[in-house]
Order: sequence, then structure tokens, then C-alpha cells
Amino acid sequence: MAYRHTPERQARDRAQREHVLQLALALVVEGGFASLTMQRLAKAADMATGSLYRHFAGKGELAAEVFCLASQREVEALQEVLATDGSALQRLRAGIERFARRAWDSRQLAWALIAEPVDPQVEEQRLRYREAYAELFAGVLREGEQHGEFRVSHPHLVAACMVGAISEVLVGPLSPQARAQRSEAQVEDDLQQVRSTLIHFCLGALAS
Amino acid sequence: MAYRHTPERQARDRAQREHVLQLALALVVEGGFASLTMQRLAKAADMATGSLYRHFAGKGELAAEVFCLASQREVEALQEVLATDGSALQRLRAGIERFARRAWDSRQLAWALIAEPVDPQVEEQRLRYREAYAELFAGVLREGEQHGEFRVSHPHLVAACMVGAISEVLVGPLSPQARAQRSEAQVEDDLQQVRSTLIHFCLGALAS
Repeated sequence: MAYRHTPERQARDRAQREHVLQLALALVVEGGFASLTMQRLAKAADMATGSLYRHFAGKGELAAEVFCLASQREVEALQEVLATDGSALQRLRAGIERFARRAWDSRQLAWALIAEPVDPQVEEQRLRYREAYAELFAGVLREGEQHGEFRVSHPHLVAACMVGAISEVLVGPLSPQARAQRSEAQVEDDLQQVRSTLIHFCLGALAS
Repeated sequence: MAYRHTPERQARDRAQREHVLQLALALVVEGGFASLTMQRLAKAADMATGSLYRHFAGKGELAAEVFCLASQREVEALQEVLATDGSALQRLRAGIERFARRAWDSRQLAWALIAEPVDPQVEEQRLRYREAYAELFAGVLREGEQHGEFRVSHPHLVAACMVGAISEVLVGPLSPQARAQRSEAQVEDDLQQVRSTLIHFCLGALAS
């Protein structure tokens, strides 16, 4: 007969796992996935490294869960702004601006989520979440089409283009090298440039 | 005194390494990075697995080298088409079309290069090569601006948007799941849709 944990023990395990995930996220916010090691996390959680492995099979699984935790918040933030009042074009614009603003406000995390080279398990989740962002943009594109705001032949493809453009244009300015060389004032200028380029690039084609 | 290999031995080593890299590329063309294992490669090269490690420290290094070998060809193909005669807009259009066409003609390889989840060492090279593609597009954007063909405030950012859009729009149709579900005829339709979406999305904003 398999040994079964009591419900109390299971609840305690779940709470501890959740707590550890939040600590892991804090490490990534601070120093990217490069800062997330089992050893450092064990220290932050005041646990033995071995106990961590009860919760996560390894660094790859842990990193993927942290990635999903943080990305889910981004998806929800985008969803919220895309669901506000206004024309489809206005909402797409607001969504792109919110995305860029959030990336700028948490640059280390944004870099980690968008581009930091990390385990293939994280890569798999990156593909999934990019699809989720694209689905949200595609929804608004379809609404704009239905209401005669603009013509768009393949909303899901245009939405993928938008997600690609947004991610890629952020990679350069958010990279550790770029951040190390820029003052706070320059960084704000960079955001303005990125924002106006994105709006023009992503929405200019719809208007034409 | 350190032991030194003879020049003949060094030349033989280099030739063998080059040969092994070509075999490794063939495995990736066939089945993506998932097919590239040290064991399978050793078999293809008719070598002991241990001998492979004389040439490559491990799978990550090997995969990164194969990635660079294949990506360098793509950069050169893009460079070539962007350097032909014609207006900047015509050349950008030709570059985008060539990129999509090449991806379609070698779909497994294109998926591996653009999106397959793989070692962080490959990820690092992906970032580098995306910058290289963007540099090429940025050069043509600057020429178009100089010749008064269009206005573009931040060519390097617009170029990054293009590279992001091109990559991301290919991810869905090139993915193994999509390929498994589509007939050859459908795949050609998909290419037409992707191509026309990309041209309109990437160049529409320039024209407006």
C-alpha cells in the first residue's frame, strides 16, 4: 500500500511550494534566471537544498514555473487593458503601450522573460505564452474588422507579427549590456522611441 | 614542455571536425536539434562517442556551432538579396520574401533555427544572429531614408520589429504540430498567407 500524506501535510507542502516560488520569482526580478540557483533559493527559503528537490525536479522545472507565474501576470495585464472601452485601434495602442511600460518598469524581469538564454523548459513556455499574447491581439483585430474599423485578412498572423515586433524591439534596449551603458534619463528616452516605433510599425499597416 | 600535434595531425583534426559538423547539420535538417545527440552523431560519423568529445565539449557547444553554420548561410542569403538592384522598398520586399521562401523550403531546419527549444548556448547565438539580420534590414532602411523613399525615425528599432515579426509569424506554421496536420497544398497556401501578411505588415507602415 502506498504511503499517503495527511491532508494537513499536503496543505503545508502546497503552501511551502507557493512560498518558495515567490522567493524564486524575487531572485529572477533581481538578477534574471542567472541568479536562480537551487543553492541560492534554498538559502533564501532557509531550507536544505535537498528539501527543494521535493518540490521541483530541478532547475529547469523551477525556472519554467517561475516563468509561467510571471508571464501569467503579463497576460492578465494585457487582457485587462485590451478589454477596456474604446475602438479596436485605441485598445491595441493601449495594449502595446502598457506592454512596453511594464517592461520598462521591471527591466530585469522583462529581459528574463523575453530573451534571457535559459533552459529549454523555459523556451517551451515562451512559445506557449507568445501564442497567448497573440490570441489576445487577434481577438481585438477581429473585433476591429467586424466593426469595419480596418481590413485585416489574417488576424492570427498579424497578431503573431505584433507579438514578434514587440518582443524583438525590446530585446536590444533591455539587454544587460544596453542597461549598463544607459543613464536613467536615456532609458526614458529609449522607452519613448520604442513606444512610438511600435505604435507606428504595428498599427501603421492597419491604418493604410 | 607541452605536447604539440604535428601540422598534419592538426589539419586532419580540422577536416574531421568540419566533416562532423556537416553530418550534425544534416541530422538537424532531418529532425531538428532533438535528433542531434552525441551518440547518433558518432554513429553517423563512424566514430567512437569519446572521440567526438575531442572536437566538442558537449551537446550544447555542438548545437551552437551547427546553429551558427546554418544561420550564417541565412545571413548571407539575405545579404545577397538585399544588395541587388532596386529601390529600398523593393529590396526589403525581396528580402522578406526570400526569407519566407527559404524557411518553407527547409521547414524542419527553419523551425530548429527560429524556435525549437534547445540549449542556452543556442539561445545566445539566436540573439546574436537576430541582431545580424536586423543590421542588414537597418542598412536598407537607412538607404531608403537617405534617398527620400520613406521616412523612418529609428531604423535600428524598425529593423528589430521586422526581424521579430518575420520570426514570430513563421513559428506557428512551421511548428511540428502544424506541419503534421497540413497537406502539401495547404502548406503552400500557408506560405502565401504568411508572405502577404508580412509584406503588408512590415512595409505598410513605411508607405503610410
